[in-house]
Amino acid sequence: MPHINLPAEFPGIRSLFMFRPETAGPLNSLVQALLHNPHPTLSAGERELIATYVSRLNECKYCCNIHGAIAKHQLNNDGDIVKQVLDNPDTAPISNKLKALLKIAAKVQQDGKKVNDDDVVNARAEGTTDIEIHDTVLIAAAFCMYNRYVDGLATWQPDDEALYDKMGEQRAKEGYFTPPFKVKRDEAELQS
Amino acid sequence: MPHINLPAEFPGIRSLFMFRPETAGPLNSLVQALLHNPHPTLSAGERELIATYVSRLNECKYCCNIHGAIAKHQLNNDGDIVKQVLDNPDTAPISNKLKALLKIAAKVQQDGKKVNDDDVVNARAEGTTDIEIHDTVLIAAAFCMYNRYVDGLATWQPDDEALYDKMGEQRAKEGYFTPPFKVKRDEAELQS
Repeated sequence: MPHINLPAEFPGIRSLFMFRPETAGPLNSLVQALLHNPHPTLSAGERELIATYVSRLNECKYCCNIHGAIAKHQLNNDGDIVKQVLDNPDTAPISNKLKALLKIAAKVQQDGKKVNDDDVVNARAEGTTDIEIHDTVLIAAAFCMYNRYVDGLATWQPDDEALYDKMGEQRAKEGYFTPPFKVKRDEAELQS
Repeated sequence: MPHINLPAEFPGIRSLFMFRPETAGPLNSLVQALLHNPHPTLSAGERELIATYVSRLNECKYCCNIHGAIAKHQLNNDGDIVKQVLDNPDTAPISNKLKALLKIAAKVQQDGKKVNDDDVVNARAEGTTDIEIHDTVLIAAAFCMYNRYVDGLATWQPDDEALYDKMGEQRAKEGYFTPPFKVKRDEAELQS
């Protein structure tokens, strides 16, 4: 049961967006910029894989399932890549560049200070750009926020794989801006 | 030395905002909504204390120093409260409600799933509202992002206390929206 009074019909972070529209706007703008908007070199699928992998490391069921489903739909509906990345990025059928970026993401998940010069040298040897390193660090850091937000308030996190797949397909197509979050609330609600 | 090519004259997260204006917007909107905009019950100083405390737990020098300075200026220039909260929230001269919220924030800093029913019951016994619990969890989660972002790219983090105090005074007065981040970049820059 959630720690606060959330609308029961929305899973995971969606219930928090309905509860607090004032922060839903920036949180959606951030994930839209990081994962969905056009990127010079990283595909949306690759960026969703980084988000999914970090969510798995943080053991956040909702975020791992929904971003895994979005990644699958961004990667031509190939869920096998997602599963292999979650099992072991080193043996997954992804580029060496993405493997190097996932190693940096895993360090960030533990503590930003763990990213060292060797990690960056290794990534550069695979041709990574400054923007790719920047965005990988920020995606990993951002999912350390989203995961803690979703778990810290004990949101409802369904087990229904078909539901995640349906939501993932929609998110992959439409991005993160669909629901019109209501920002006005009356004083009574604010005090409750 | 930073892991990527950042403008040398800006410390900490400011250098990252200049490097990547596309994400600077949402990141600033989020911290403005969480820490600076009017809140029904938590003062800006109390919210800055939560951010400062989590940044200390994550051992992020830049964020702890700058938000400690902002907290000081929001709390009638009383830096002693900030120091006592960082030393030991339980004995600091703050409300029992804020102590209960800081305990929740400390759990979120480790892992959202560590927040349990007892933590919430204890907070409610001190009169906390749903919005206060929500915002505490999201502030703590957000600083797990900001701290990792600033440290994960090895940004320049000055030691000059007077500099943090000056920046803190400005931020406390003006909020988080001052610099006009340039969003346009040319293709050559994106590929570099």
